[in-house]
Amino acid sequence: MINKNIPVPTVRRLANYLPVLLQKKEEGKRFIASRELADELFIESGKVRKDFQYARIKGRPKRGYEINYLIREIDSKLNWTGYKRAVLIGVGNLGSALLSYENFSRYGIQFTDAFDIDRRRVGMNIHDIKVSHMDNIEKVLKDKKIDIAVLTVPATVALETAEKVTSLGIKGIWNFSPVMIKSTPETAVVSAQLAESLAVLTQQL
Amino acid sequence: MINKNIPVPTVRRLANYLPVLLQKKEEGKRFIASRELADELFIESGKVRKDFQYARIKGRPKRGYEINYLIREIDSKLNWTGYKRAVLIGVGNLGSALLSYENFSRYGIQFTDAFDIDRRRVGMNIHDIKVSHMDNIEKVLKDKKIDIAVLTVPATVALETAEKVTSLGIKGIWNFSPVMIKSTPETAVVSAQLAESLAVLTQQL
Repeated sequence: MINKNIPVPTVRRLANYLPVLLQKKEEGKRFIASRELADELFIESGKVRKDFQYARIKGRPKRGYEINYLIREIDSKLNWTGYKRAVLIGVGNLGSALLSYENFSRYGIQFTDAFDIDRRRVGMNIHDIKVSHMDNIEKVLKDKKIDIAVLTVPATVALETAEKVTSLGIKGIWNFSPVMIKSTPETAVVSAQLAESLAVLTQQL
Repeated sequence: MINKNIPVPTVRRLANYLPVLLQKKEEGKRFIASRELADELFIESGKVRKDFQYARIKGRPKRGYEINYLIREIDSKLNWTGYKRAVLIGVGNLGSALLSYENFSRYGIQFTDAFDIDRRRVGMNIHDIKVSHMDNIEKVLKDKKIDIAVLTVPATVALETAEKVTSLGIKGIWNFSPVMIKSTPETAVVSAQLAESLAVLTQQL
């Protein structure tokens, strides 16, 4: 499933190391030890070192890892350098929230268009992104060479919407609906799975 | 960190097994093999069996796992039976989206109140949840015995908001801000970490 042989749990943790590193950088630090990074995320320091091995990221025996180098490497391994063009489908509350979430540019995501079938939403601008009718999606995906579709549609239409964009050749789907959508050889599907982190919380209470 | 000795990766996967099981149940199935469940989530079937061992969930050698029993057990291990009372702080787009997300009741979450500091939002009702001013939060948390605070505030005030509800004795914080907030012995903090699943997607593109 995943290119470059980095295991999925490592990919997830790399995404979590990043905010810590950016914060340490802002505090003026230049190096970080695996133990320090591990402590911040409540994991074992051996796991941090293993993750960096898997991702082929190198540290210095005495001084630890150079923070700027780590940030650059993680961004590169996660494909967060440069920009992936994305559209968002389903401009309800969650969709609007995601369109206005400033951090996506940090993660190399650039929204070009949004789509909905509700005539009251079509024509709106949300955070400078124009909302078009779903009827126009085929043209936009082709003309603008879109990589990613973010699905924030109701559960009832999630599967058919995913099939539609898959048939139009989209490379990746980020699914926010509670419906399970499977990857195909051509289209990678990853679900945001809010319930995952909620489970980790409620299980402790 | 976690009660009952179920490892965090297992807890996360238990949350992911659930939608598959609910779907199979709707399709009229009564039993499921670990391989079938594993295939649906693109993981190894040994991992499924290990997860159920960790969670002390039993299967039958020949017929696999009874779906109704699995659903009941997972709900129970994740503490998704009964209800936890929750408040939401920060009623922007994301906060509004979460308040109207019907599935939370499936996960044993019941929102009683929402809070904001913006006078234009205070007094509004979103999906039958009243938005009050943050000045009133102390009284509400105490009077209604709230378990969980969902933080959908801007990054700039995330930490101080977390400290506020921690000092008021909240048991769990579900953090949607990109800011790292640490657990304390009294208050468990789990972040929704949207970037995690995004990383798994972009890494494949």
